[in-house]
Amino acid sequence: MSVYGAILAGGTGSRMTNHSIPKQFIELKNKPIIIRTIERMLSSNCFDKLFIAIHTDYTEYLKDLLKENNIPDNKIYITNGGKERIDSIRNVMKAIKDNGAEYNDVIITHDAVRPFISKRIIEDSIKAVNEFGACVAVVPAVDTMYVLDNNEYISSFPDRKTLFNGQAPDSFKFGILDDALNKLTEEEAKIITGTVQICAAKGYKIKTIKGDYTNIKITTENDLSIAEGILRELETNESLCINK
Amino acid sequence: MSVYGAILAGGTGSRMTNHSIPKQFIELKNKPIIIRTIERMLSSNCFDKLFIAIHTDYTEYLKDLLKENNIPDNKIYITNGGKERIDSIRNVMKAIKDNGAEYNDVIITHDAVRPFISKRIIEDSIKAVNEFGACVAVVPAVDTMYVLDNNEYISSFPDRKTLFNGQAPDSFKFGILDDALNKLTEEEAKIITGTVQICAAKGYKIKTIKGDYTNIKITTENDLSIAEGILRELETNESLCINK
Repeated sequence: MSVYGAILAGGTGSRMTNHSIPKQFIELKNKPIIIRTIERMLSSNCFDKLFIAIHTDYTEYLKDLLKENNIPDNKIYITNGGKERIDSIRNVMKAIKDNGAEYNDVIITHDAVRPFISKRIIEDSIKAVNEFGACVAVVPAVDTMYVLDNNEYISSFPDRKTLFNGQAPDSFKFGILDDALNKLTEEEAKIITGTVQICAAKGYKIKTIKGDYTNIKITTENDLSIAEGILRELETNESLCINK
Repeated sequence: MSVYGAILAGGTGSRMTNHSIPKQFIELKNKPIIIRTIERMLSSNCFDKLFIAIHTDYTEYLKDLLKENNIPDNKIYITNGGKERIDSIRNVMKAIKDNGAEYNDVIITHDAVRPFISKRIIEDSIKAVNEFGACVAVVPAVDTMYVLDNNEYISSFPDRKTLFNGQAPDSFKFGILDDALNKLTEEEAKIITGTVQICAAKGYKIKTIKGDYTNIKITTENDLSIAEGILRELETNESLCINK
Protein backbone atom coordinates (compact mmCIF):
# COMPACT_ATOMS: atom_id res chain seq x y z
CA MET A 1 0.00 0.00 0.00
CA SER A 2 1.33 3.43 -1.00
CA VAL A 3 0.50 6.74 0.62
CA TYR A 4 0.24 9.81 -1.61
CA GLY A 5 0.01 13.38 -0.45
CA ALA A 6 -1.87 15.86 -2.62
CA ILE A 7 -1.27 19.53 -1.92
CA LEU A 8 -3.81 21.76 -3.61
CA ALA A 9 -2.14 25.07 -4.39
CA GLY A 10 -3.93 26.07 -7.55
CA GLY A 11 -5.04 29.50 -6.36
CA THR A 12 -3.43 32.61 -7.81
CA GLY A 13 -5.10 35.23 -5.65
CA SER A 14 -4.51 36.64 -2.21
CA ARG A 15 -7.02 38.18 0.16
CA MET A 16 -4.09 39.73 1.99
CA THR A 17 -3.85 43.37 1.09
CA ASN A 18 -0.12 43.80 1.61
CA HIS A 19 0.91 41.01 -0.72
CA SER A 20 0.85 40.71 -4.50
CA ILE A 21 1.78 37.01 -4.63
CA PRO A 22 -0.64 34.09 -4.09
CA LYS A 23 -1.11 33.44 -0.41
CA GLN A 24 0.75 30.10 -0.39
CA PHE A 25 3.97 31.95 -1.31
CA ILE A 26 3.74 34.56 1.43
CA GLU A 27 6.58 34.19 3.90
CA LEU A 28 5.95 33.08 7.44
CA LYS A 29 9.13 33.88 9.38
CA ASN A 30 11.35 34.01 6.26
CA LYS A 31 9.96 30.89 4.64
CA PRO A 32 7.05 30.63 2.17
CA ILE A 33 3.99 28.99 3.70
CA ILE A 34 3.84 26.27 1.02
CA ILE A 35 7.48 25.30 1.72
CA ARG A 36 6.61 24.93 5.41
CA THR A 37 3.64 22.73 4.48
CA ILE A 38 5.76 20.55 2.18
CA GLU A 39 8.61 20.24 4.71
CA ARG A 40 6.23 19.27 7.47
CA MET A 41 4.49 16.62 5.38
CA LEU A 42 7.80 15.17 4.14
CA SER A 43 9.35 15.10 7.61
CA SER A 44 6.51 12.89 8.84
CA ASN A 45 8.07 10.10 6.73
CA CYS A 46 4.54 8.92 5.96
CA PHE A 47 4.45 9.68 2.23
CA ASP A 48 5.71 7.74 -0.77
CA LYS A 49 5.20 10.79 -2.93
CA LEU A 50 3.83 14.32 -2.66
CA PHE A 51 1.82 15.64 -5.60
CA ILE A 52 1.46 19.41 -5.80
CA ALA A 53 -1.15 21.01 -8.05
CA ILE A 54 -0.07 24.54 -8.90
CA HIS A 55 -0.96 27.12 -11.55
CA THR A 56 1.47 26.86 -14.48
CA ASP A 57 2.48 30.55 -14.01
CA TYR A 58 4.10 29.51 -10.74
CA THR A 59 5.60 26.10 -11.58
CA GLU A 60 9.13 27.41 -12.15
CA TYR A 61 8.87 29.68 -9.13
CA LEU A 62 7.93 26.72 -6.93
CA LYS A 63 10.77 24.63 -8.39
CA ASP A 64 13.23 27.39 -7.52
CA LEU A 65 11.85 27.60 -3.98
CA LEU A 66 12.17 23.84 -3.51
CA LYS A 67 15.82 24.04 -4.64
CA GLU A 68 16.60 27.06 -2.44
CA ASN A 69 15.17 25.22 0.58
CA ASN A 70 17.10 22.02 -0.22
CA ILE A 71 13.97 19.91 -0.57
CA PRO A 72 14.92 16.68 -2.38
CA ASP A 73 12.91 16.37 -5.59
CA ASN A 74 12.74 12.56 -5.69
CA LYS A 75 9.48 12.57 -3.70
CA ILE A 76 7.90 15.65 -5.27
CA TYR A 77 5.71 15.63 -8.37
CA ILE A 78 4.36 18.95 -9.65
CA THR A 79 1.19 18.99 -11.74
CA ASN A 80 -1.07 21.71 -13.14
CA GLY A 81 -3.54 23.37 -10.84
CA GLY A 82 -6.77 23.73 -12.75
CA LYS A 83 -8.99 26.79 -13.09
CA GLU A 84 -11.25 25.65 -10.26
CA ARG A 85 -10.40 23.57 -7.20
CA ILE A 86 -12.21 20.60 -8.71
CA ASP A 87 -9.90 20.78 -11.75
CA SER A 88 -6.85 20.71 -9.46
CA ILE A 89 -8.26 17.63 -7.74
CA ARG A 90 -8.84 15.93 -11.10
CA ASN A 91 -5.35 16.79 -12.35
CA VAL A 92 -3.73 15.48 -9.19
CA MET A 93 -5.79 12.27 -9.33
CA LYS A 94 -4.77 11.73 -12.94
CA ALA A 95 -1.10 12.21 -12.03
CA ILE A 96 -1.41 9.75 -9.15
CA LYS A 97 -3.20 7.24 -11.38
CA ASP A 98 -0.42 7.56 -13.99
CA ASN A 99 2.00 6.81 -11.15
CA GLY A 100 0.34 3.39 -10.85
CA ALA A 101 -1.98 3.97 -7.88
CA GLU A 102 -4.21 1.09 -6.81
CA TYR A 103 -7.67 1.05 -5.19
CA ASN A 104 -6.44 0.65 -1.61
CA ASP A 105 -3.63 3.19 -1.79
CA VAL A 106 -4.15 6.18 0.47
CA ILE A 107 -4.47 9.73 -0.82
CA ILE A 108 -4.18 12.53 1.69
CA THR A 109 -5.35 15.85 0.22
CA HIS A 110 -4.18 18.95 2.05
CA ASP A 111 -4.24 22.74 1.73
CA ALA A 112 -1.00 24.49 0.75
CA VAL A 113 -1.83 27.20 3.30
CA ARG A 114 -2.28 24.87 6.29
CA PRO A 115 1.37 24.49 7.33
CA PHE A 116 0.89 23.14 10.86
CA ILE A 117 -0.34 19.67 9.91
CA SER A 118 1.15 17.21 12.41
CA LYS A 119 2.56 13.71 12.12
CA ARG A 120 -0.18 12.55 14.50
CA ILE A 121 -2.91 13.88 12.20
CA ILE A 122 -1.28 12.23 9.17
CA GLU A 123 -0.93 8.88 10.94
CA ASP A 124 -4.51 9.01 12.25
CA SER A 125 -5.72 9.79 8.73
CA ILE A 126 -3.90 6.80 7.22
CA LYS A 127 -5.28 4.50 9.92
CA ALA A 128 -8.84 5.77 9.45
CA VAL A 129 -8.66 5.42 5.66
CA ASN A 130 -7.48 1.84 5.98
CA GLU A 131 -10.32 1.04 8.34
CA PHE A 132 -13.17 3.23 7.06
CA GLY A 133 -12.23 4.27 3.50
CA ALA A 134 -12.52 8.04 3.92
CA CYS A 135 -11.92 10.60 6.66
CA VAL A 136 -11.45 14.27 7.42
CA ALA A 137 -9.82 16.14 10.31
CA VAL A 138 -12.25 18.12 12.47
CA VAL A 139 -12.29 20.04 15.74
CA PRO A 140 -15.31 20.65 18.01
CA ALA A 141 -17.04 23.98 17.34
CA VAL A 142 -16.00 26.53 19.95
CA ASP A 143 -18.41 29.32 19.14
CA THR A 144 -22.17 29.23 19.52
CA MET A 145 -23.47 28.92 15.95
CA TYR A 146 -26.72 30.32 14.62
CA VAL A 147 -28.70 29.56 11.46
CA LEU A 148 -30.16 32.77 10.02
CA ASP A 149 -33.23 33.24 7.87
CA ASN A 150 -33.40 35.60 4.88
CA ASN A 151 -34.30 38.52 7.10
CA GLU A 152 -31.24 38.08 9.32
CA TYR A 153 -33.22 36.76 12.26
CA ILE A 154 -31.96 33.67 14.07
CA SER A 155 -34.01 30.76 12.76
CA SER A 156 -32.36 27.91 14.68
CA PHE A 157 -29.62 26.94 17.11
CA PRO A 158 -27.59 23.95 15.90
CA ASP A 159 -26.60 21.70 18.79
CA ARG A 160 -22.98 22.59 19.51
CA LYS A 161 -22.25 19.12 20.89
CA THR A 162 -22.67 17.59 17.39
CA LEU A 163 -21.17 20.49 15.44
CA PHE A 164 -17.56 20.43 14.23
CA ASN A 165 -15.27 22.67 12.20
CA GLY A 166 -13.85 20.92 9.16
CA GLN A 167 -10.10 21.22 8.63
CA ALA A 168 -7.80 19.38 6.25
CA PRO A 169 -6.43 16.85 5.38
CA ASP A 170 -9.28 15.02 3.67
CA SER A 171 -8.11 11.45 3.10
CA PHE A 172 -9.41 8.56 1.01
CA LYS A 173 -8.70 5.22 -0.49
CA PHE A 174 -7.58 6.17 -3.97
CA GLY A 175 -10.30 4.01 -5.51
CA ILE A 176 -13.06 5.70 -3.52
CA LEU A 177 -12.16 9.26 -4.47
CA ASP A 178 -11.54 8.14 -8.06
CA ASP A 179 -14.96 6.47 -8.24
CA ALA A 180 -16.76 9.46 -6.70
CA LEU A 181 -15.01 11.89 -9.08
CA ASN A 182 -15.93 9.76 -12.09
CA LYS A 183 -19.58 9.62 -11.06
CA LEU A 184 -19.84 13.36 -10.39
CA THR A 185 -22.09 15.04 -12.96
CA GLU A 186 -21.05 18.34 -14.54
CA GLU A 187 -23.89 20.03 -12.67
CA GLU A 188 -22.62 18.67 -9.35
CA ALA A 189 -19.03 19.61 -10.21
CA LYS A 190 -20.12 23.24 -10.47
CA ILE A 191 -21.39 23.41 -6.90
CA ILE A 192 -19.38 20.74 -5.05
CA THR A 193 -15.65 21.41 -4.83
CA GLY A 194 -14.55 19.72 -1.60
CA THR A 195 -13.32 16.14 -1.78
CA VAL A 196 -15.32 15.20 1.33
CA GLN A 197 -18.55 16.52 -0.19
CA ILE A 198 -17.77 14.77 -3.49
CA CYS A 199 -17.44 11.35 -1.83
CA ALA A 200 -20.44 11.95 0.45
CA ALA A 201 -22.56 12.95 -2.56
CA LYS A 202 -21.77 9.57 -4.11
CA GLY A 203 -22.82 7.64 -1.04
CA TYR A 204 -19.53 7.07 0.77
CA LYS A 205 -19.60 7.47 4.53
CA ILE A 206 -16.97 9.88 5.87
CA LYS A 207 -15.31 9.14 9.21
CA THR A 208 -13.75 11.99 11.18
CA ILE A 209 -10.43 12.14 12.99
CA LYS A 210 -9.29 14.61 15.64
CA GLY A 211 -7.71 17.69 14.05
CA ASP A 212 -5.91 20.34 16.05
CA TYR A 213 -6.66 23.98 16.81
CA THR A 214 -3.13 24.84 15.63
CA ASN A 215 -3.84 23.26 12.21
CA ILE A 216 -5.12 26.59 10.86
CA LYS A 217 -5.64 27.76 7.31
CA ILE A 218 -3.83 31.00 6.54
CA THR A 219 -5.97 33.21 4.32
CA THR A 220 -5.99 36.65 5.95
CA GLU A 221 -3.50 39.05 7.56
CA ASN A 222 -5.08 38.14 10.89
CA ASP A 223 -4.37 34.43 10.24
CA LEU A 224 -0.77 35.36 9.50
CA SER A 225 -0.45 36.93 12.98
CA ILE A 226 -1.95 33.81 14.52
CA ALA A 227 0.44 31.64 12.50
CA GLU A 228 3.42 33.58 13.82
CA GLY A 229 2.21 32.89 17.34
CA ILE A 230 1.75 29.18 16.66
CA LEU A 231 5.18 28.98 15.03
CA ARG A 232 6.78 30.54 18.12
CA GLU A 233 5.01 27.95 20.28
CA LEU A 234 6.07 25.07 18.02
CA GLU A 235 9.67 26.23 18.02
CA THR A 236 9.84 26.50 21.79
CA ASN A 237 7.94 23.30 22.50
CA GLU A 238 9.86 20.35 21.13
CA SER A 239 7.07 17.88 21.78
CA LEU A 240 5.00 19.68 19.17
CA CYS A 241 7.66 19.42 16.47
CA ILE A 242 7.73 16.75 13.82
CA ASN A 243 10.84 14.56 14.04
CA LYS A 244 12.96 17.35 15.43
CA MET B 1 -34.21 55.96 26.97
CA SER B 2 -31.16 54.79 28.89
CA VAL B 3 -28.48 52.41 27.65
CA TYR B 4 -26.93 50.02 30.15
CA GLY B 5 -23.87 47.88 29.56
CA ALA B 6 -23.63 44.56 31.41
CA ILE B 7 -20.21 42.94 31.53
CA LEU B 8 -20.35 39.34 32.65
CA ALA B 9 -17.12 38.54 34.45
CA GLY B 10 -18.27 36.01 37.00
CA GLY B 11 -15.81 33.29 36.04
CA THR B 12 -12.99 32.44 38.42
CA GLY B 13 -11.11 29.92 36.31
CA SER B 14 -8.61 30.07 33.50
CA ARG B 15 -7.97 27.58 30.75
CA MET B 16 -4.62 29.24 30.22
CA THR B 17 -1.90 27.12 31.70
CA ASN B 18 0.56 29.89 32.49
CA HIS B 19 -1.84 31.96 34.55
CA SER B 20 -3.31 31.49 38.00
CA ILE B 21 -5.74 34.41 37.83
CA PRO B 22 -9.15 34.34 36.12
CA LYS B 23 -8.77 34.99 32.42
CA GLN B 24 -10.38 38.43 32.46
CA PHE B 25 -7.51 39.70 34.63
CA ILE B 26 -4.70 38.40 32.42
CA GLU B 27 -2.70 41.25 30.95
CA LEU B 28 -2.78 41.99 27.27
CA LYS B 29 0.17 44.31 26.60
CA ASN B 30 0.46 45.45 30.21
CA LYS B 31 -3.23 45.99 30.80
CA PRO B 32 -5.79 43.47 32.15
CA ILE B 33 -8.23 42.31 29.47
CA ILE B 34 -11.27 43.39 31.50
CA ILE B 35 -9.87 46.92 31.83
CA ARG B 36 -9.46 47.07 28.06
CA THR B 37 -13.06 45.92 27.62
CA ILE B 38 -14.36 48.51 30.08
CA GLU B 39 -12.27 51.32 28.57
CA ARG B 40 -13.43 50.51 25.09
CA MET B 41 -17.09 50.39 26.07
CA LEU B 42 -16.86 53.66 28.03
CA SER B 43 -14.99 55.47 25.28
CA SER B 44 -17.85 54.76 22.87
CA ASN B 45 -19.87 57.32 24.87
CA CYS B 46 -22.93 55.13 24.28
CA PHE B 47 -23.57 54.02 27.87
CA ASP B 48 -25.36 55.67 30.76
CA LYS B 49 -23.93 53.08 33.10
CA LEU B 50 -21.81 49.95 33.00
CA PHE B 51 -22.78 47.08 35.32
CA ILE B 52 -20.08 44.53 36.00
CA ALA B 53 -20.94 41.15 37.52
CA ILE B 54 -17.87 39.75 39.25
CA HIS B 55 -17.17 37.06 41.84
CA THR B 56 -17.00 38.66 45.31
CA ASP B 57 -13.45 37.32 45.78
CA TYR B 58 -12.34 39.73 43.08
CA THR B 59 -14.47 42.82 43.80
CA GLU B 60 -11.75 44.71 45.65
CA TYR B 61 -9.15 43.62 43.12
CA LEU B 62 -11.27 45.03 40.29
CA LYS B 63 -11.86 48.27 42.20
CA ASP B 64 -8.10 48.68 42.62
CA LEU B 65 -7.54 48.05 38.91
CA LEU B 66 -10.18 50.64 37.97
CA LYS B 67 -8.43 53.17 40.21
CA GLU B 68 -4.96 52.32 38.89
CA ASN B 69 -6.19 52.80 35.35
CA ASN B 70 -7.92 56.10 36.15
CA ILE B 71 -11.35 54.87 35.15
CA PRO B 72 -13.95 57.28 36.60
CA ASP B 73 -16.28 55.37 38.90
CA ASN B 74 -19.38 57.49 38.34
CA LYS B 75 -20.49 55.28 35.46
CA ILE B 76 -19.44 51.92 36.93
CA TYR B 77 -21.59 49.71 39.14
CA ILE B 78 -20.12 46.46 40.44
CA THR B 79 -22.44 43.61 41.40
CA ASN B 80 -21.99 39.98 42.42
CA GLY B 81 -21.26 37.43 39.76
CA GLY B 82 -23.30 34.34 40.55
CA LYS B 83 -22.19 30.73 40.67
CA GLU B 84 -23.39 30.09 37.12
CA ARG B 85 -23.59 32.50 34.21
CA ILE B 86 -27.38 32.62 34.58
CA ASP B 87 -26.95 33.83 38.17
CA SER B 88 -24.66 36.63 36.99
CA ILE B 89 -27.28 37.65 34.44
CA ARG B 90 -30.00 37.68 37.11
CA ASN B 91 -27.86 39.69 39.53
CA VAL B 92 -27.00 42.26 36.88
CA MET B 93 -30.65 42.54 35.84
CA LYS B 94 -31.69 43.09 39.45
CA ALA B 95 -29.06 45.82 39.85
CA ILE B 96 -30.24 47.51 36.67
CA LYS B 97 -33.88 47.27 37.76
CA ASP B 98 -32.97 48.81 41.13
CA ASN B 99 -31.36 51.62 39.13
CA GLY B 100 -34.84 52.43 37.77
CA ALA B 101 -34.68 50.74 34.35
CA GLU B 102 -37.77 50.91 32.15
CA TYR B 103 -39.15 48.49 29.56
CA ASN B 104 -37.68 50.28 26.53
CA ASP B 105 -34.24 50.91 28.02
CA VAL B 106 -31.44 49.08 26.23
CA ILE B 107 -29.25 46.49 27.92
CA ILE B 108 -26.10 45.45 26.10
CA THR B 109 -24.58 42.30 27.64
CA HIS B 110 -20.96 41.67 26.80
CA ASP B 111 -18.13 39.28 27.70
CA ALA B 112 -15.33 40.61 29.92
CA VAL B 113 -12.85 38.74 27.72
CA ARG B 114 -13.96 40.28 24.39
CA PRO B 115 -11.99 43.54 24.54
CA PHE B 116 -12.17 44.56 20.86
CA ILE B 117 -15.85 45.50 20.80
CA SER B 118 -16.19 48.55 18.54
CA LYS B 119 -18.28 51.71 18.70
CA ARG B 120 -19.91 50.64 15.41
CA ILE B 121 -21.04 47.33 16.91
CA ILE B 122 -22.43 49.10 19.99
CA GLU B 123 -24.30 51.67 17.91
CA ASP B 124 -25.70 49.02 15.57
CA SER B 125 -26.85 47.02 18.60
CA ILE B 126 -28.69 50.00 20.10
CA LYS B 127 -30.38 50.72 16.76
CA ALA B 128 -31.42 47.09 16.29
CA VAL B 129 -32.81 46.83 19.82
CA ASN B 130 -34.88 49.97 19.34
CA GLU B 131 -36.29 48.59 16.09
CA PHE B 132 -36.47 44.84 16.74
CA GLY B 133 -36.31 44.38 20.53
CA ALA B 134 -33.36 41.96 20.66
CA CYS B 135 -30.19 41.34 18.69
CA VAL B 136 -26.80 39.63 18.72
CA ALA B 137 -23.54 40.28 16.84
CA VAL B 138 -22.61 37.52 14.38
CA VAL B 139 -20.07 36.87 11.62
CA PRO B 140 -20.47 34.50 8.65
CA ALA B 141 -19.01 31.06 9.26
CA VAL B 142 -15.61 30.78 7.57
CA ASP B 143 -14.94 27.07 8.02
CA THR B 144 -16.89 24.25 6.46
CA MET B 145 -18.97 22.84 9.33
CA TYR B 146 -20.03 19.23 9.79
CA VAL B 147 -22.67 17.62 11.99
CA LEU B 148 -21.39 14.31 13.39
CA ASP B 149 -23.33 11.27 14.49
CA ASN B 150 -22.52 9.24 17.61
CA ASN B 151 -20.00 7.15 15.72
CA GLU B 152 -18.00 10.17 14.55
CA TYR B 153 -19.18 9.90 10.97
CA ILE B 154 -20.36 13.03 9.17
CA SER B 155 -24.15 12.94 9.28
CA SER B 156 -24.91 16.25 7.55
CA PHE B 157 -23.43 19.37 6.00
CA PRO B 158 -25.07 22.55 7.29
CA ASP B 159 -25.42 25.14 4.52
CA ARG B 160 -22.56 27.57 5.14
CA LYS B 161 -24.47 30.44 3.52
CA THR B 162 -27.00 30.46 6.39
CA LEU B 163 -24.55 29.59 9.17
CA PHE B 164 -23.04 32.26 11.42
CA ASN B 165 -20.71 32.38 14.43
CA GLY B 166 -22.29 34.05 17.42
CA GLN B 167 -20.23 36.73 19.15
CA ALA B 168 -21.22 39.24 21.80
CA PRO B 169 -22.75 41.68 22.64
CA ASP B 170 -26.25 40.28 23.04
CA SER B 171 -28.61 43.24 23.36
CA PHE B 172 -32.22 43.61 24.43
CA LYS B 173 -34.94 45.93 25.53
CA PHE B 174 -34.69 45.68 29.29
CA GLY B 175 -38.34 44.59 29.51
CA ILE B 176 -37.85 41.74 27.05
CA LEU B 177 -34.88 40.15 28.81
CA ASP B 178 -36.56 40.73 32.17
CA ASP B 179 -39.75 39.03 30.99
CA ALA B 180 -37.88 36.08 29.46
CA LEU B 181 -35.80 35.60 32.64
CA ASN B 182 -38.93 35.66 34.80
CA LYS B 183 -40.64 33.07 32.64
CA LEU B 184 -37.65 30.73 32.56
CA THR B 185 -38.33 27.54 34.50
CA GLU B 186 -35.69 26.11 36.85
CA GLU B 187 -35.30 23.17 34.46
CA GLU B 188 -34.62 25.54 31.55
CA ALA B 189 -32.24 27.63 33.65
CA LYS B 190 -30.06 24.56 34.13
CA ILE B 191 -29.48 24.05 30.43
CA ILE B 192 -29.91 27.52 28.90
CA THR B 193 -27.33 30.08 29.99
CA GLY B 194 -27.03 32.46 27.04
CA THR B 195 -29.24 35.56 27.04
CA VAL B 196 -30.07 35.06 23.35
CA GLN B 197 -31.24 31.51 23.96
CA ILE B 198 -33.26 32.61 27.01
CA CYS B 199 -35.21 35.19 25.01
CA ALA B 200 -35.61 32.86 22.02
CA ALA B 201 -36.93 30.10 24.32
CA LYS B 202 -39.65 32.50 25.47
CA GLY B 203 -40.76 33.32 21.94
CA TYR B 204 -38.88 36.54 21.22
CA LYS B 205 -37.38 36.85 17.75
CA ILE B 206 -33.68 37.68 17.72
CA LYS B 207 -32.32 39.96 15.01
CA THR B 208 -28.62 39.80 14.12
CA ILE B 209 -26.16 42.60 13.50
CA LYS B 210 -22.77 42.44 11.80
CA GLY B 211 -20.02 41.59 14.27
CA ASP B 212 -16.34 41.76 13.41
CA TYR B 213 -13.65 39.10 13.04
CA THR B 214 -11.47 41.17 15.41
CA ASN B 215 -14.18 40.99 18.11
CA ILE B 216 -12.67 37.78 19.50
CA LYS B 217 -13.19 36.10 22.86
CA ILE B 218 -9.91 35.45 24.67
CA THR B 219 -10.02 32.08 26.43
CA THR B 220 -6.82 30.26 25.44
CA GLU B 221 -3.11 31.04 25.12
CA ASN B 222 -3.60 30.91 21.36
CA ASP B 223 -6.33 33.57 21.60
CA LEU B 224 -3.91 35.72 23.58
CA SER B 225 -1.41 35.59 20.68
CA ILE B 226 -4.19 36.53 18.27
CA ALA B 227 -5.24 39.37 20.56
CA GLU B 228 -1.70 40.76 20.58
CA GLY B 229 -1.77 40.78 16.79
CA ILE B 230 -5.14 42.54 16.69
CA LEU B 231 -3.97 45.08 19.26
CA ARG B 232 -0.92 45.90 17.13
CA GLU B 233 -3.21 46.40 14.12
CA LEU B 234 -5.59 48.59 16.11
CA GLU B 235 -2.78 50.73 17.43
CA THR B 236 -1.27 51.31 13.99
CA ASN B 237 -4.58 51.85 12.23
CA GLU B 238 -6.29 54.90 13.67
CA SER B 239 -9.49 54.28 11.76
CA LEU B 240 -10.04 51.18 13.86
CA CYS B 241 -9.63 52.97 17.18
CA ILE B 242 -12.50 54.22 19.26
CA ASN B 243 -12.41 57.98 19.74
CA LYS B 244 -8.64 58.19 19.64
